[in-house]
Amino acid sequence: MPSENVIGTAEDVLVPQIRVIFFDTFGTVVDWRSSMLDTASRLGRHRGVDADWGALVDAWRAEYAPSMDRVRRGELPWTTLDDLHRSSLRKVITQLAIDGLTTDDLEVLVLGWHQLRPWPDVLAGLHRLKDRYTISTLSNGSVAMLTDIAKNTGLPWDHIIGADVFHHYKPDREVYLGACSLLGCAPEEAVMCAAHNDDLAHARSAGLGTAFLRRPTEHGPRQQTDLYAQQEWDYTADSITELARLLDRC
Amino acid sequence: MPSENVIGTAEDVLVPQIRVIFFDTFGTVVDWRSSMLDTASRLGRHRGVDADWGALVDAWRAEYAPSMDRVRRGELPWTTLDDLHRSSLRKVITQLAIDGLTTDDLEVLVLGWHQLRPWPDVLAGLHRLKDRYTISTLSNGSVAMLTDIAKNTGLPWDHIIGADVFHHYKPDREVYLGACSLLGCAPEEAVMCAAHNDDLAHARSAGLGTAFLRRPTEHGPRQQTDLYAQQEWDYTADSITELARLLDRC
Repeated sequence: MPSENVIGTAEDVLVPQIRVIFFDTFGTVVDWRSSMLDTASRLGRHRGVDADWGALVDAWRAEYAPSMDRVRRGELPWTTLDDLHRSSLRKVITQLAIDGLTTDDLEVLVLGWHQLRPWPDVLAGLHRLKDRYTISTLSNGSVAMLTDIAKNTGLPWDHIIGADVFHHYKPDREVYLGACSLLGCAPEEAVMCAAHNDDLAHARSAGLGTAFLRRPTEHGPRQQTDLYAQQEWDYTADSITELARLLDRC
Repeated sequence: MPSENVIGTAEDVLVPQIRVIFFDTFGTVVDWRSSMLDTASRLGRHRGVDADWGALVDAWRAEYAPSMDRVRRGELPWTTLDDLHRSSLRKVITQLAIDGLTTDDLEVLVLGWHQLRPWPDVLAGLHRLKDRYTISTLSNGSVAMLTDIAKNTGLPWDHIIGADVFHHYKPDREVYLGACSLLGCAPEEAVMCAAHNDDLAHARSAGLGTAFLRRPTEHGPRQQTDLYAQQEWDYTADSITELARLLDRC
């Protein structure tokens, strides 16, 4: 209850209480790779188009960071992730010489990112955390995309924050600090939860607490990155339910 | 499902479907006056301070629109509603010569706006609408305030939009159009629901559909304003449950 901030003891003031937990979404909360692989394979069967859909999804995702970097460096004006996905999909379809998909088919793929499935631990873990904390996305997805994902799968967010709220992509500092400001908390009252060491390093440098979630198959069975915590994060867990248990001990 | 936009028939394209319902919050969703009257009266009893708490709440609320107007006219830089409430409360406490409240007490009153109670029809109505539409606040409150209200009372918003997302207060056009843009809908795919004719007039001029909710005791038993729809709004109802029934017929 907010009024506890006013009538709290000196001790409450000196030891920051965690009030908000922010979640990276792609990879941390939703299993984008297997979801998009299903969407693309289904579309291929429906259209009678044969292709290595795993290669398509991986090549498409490989364009993700470079496309946002172009926005960050100012080479592109503000562009939402849907539009970045649209243009990088065309590039990748051409590179992989996949023929037979219509413009509408490409749009089905782009909107596939609005229908990603959560990892198995997510719903139970978020419901548990929501009883005690404000839980919010803090994602490079757009608000519309994140809202669609939440509605399709029942993710119980208290709030949804996407990069289009700030016209900045993570790891720009504006995103971490802007999110804290929107939810009315100091950075030290918030924890960033992500499956990516880089995201956490930037969150920590902005003053937030950090929780590393191991998602060793985010990029498929041969994943090489983010298999382990690369710094001593405040919390490290294999699931959101485990994170909830760790936070219960605090 | 978003992909319906792609594979829909020509008819779907010509007749805009309602996808998002935006809700004004103070007065439309929550009964701010009786909630704040309870908070102030309780505080007064606790502190042994006697005052006309109804007069305090009404005078405080009367500062609401003028204080936002100062931001809109550029006389103040961007200021959140919490901070506008803080400064207008001090003014009103002085005007009404209420003595005996501490700085912490004033903060309890300011944070009372984070704990407002919904009208009796709200929870059932929102749950019903949420099955079919994306439901979001579109309020001059701050995101933190609106999130606290939702968490305290279980309001099932898909998304929470406050004025601090845009650094504009309603009825600035930026708020209505910015909200549609964030949720990825055209203005004609959204309906603004409010208990205030003025809010709906501005929403309509920005291209949104309109739903007038009669809240004849928002300002107490002697309310003079917004007792009736002043234009032919798209929908007029006495409760959110009635609005849900009207929309079911579309």
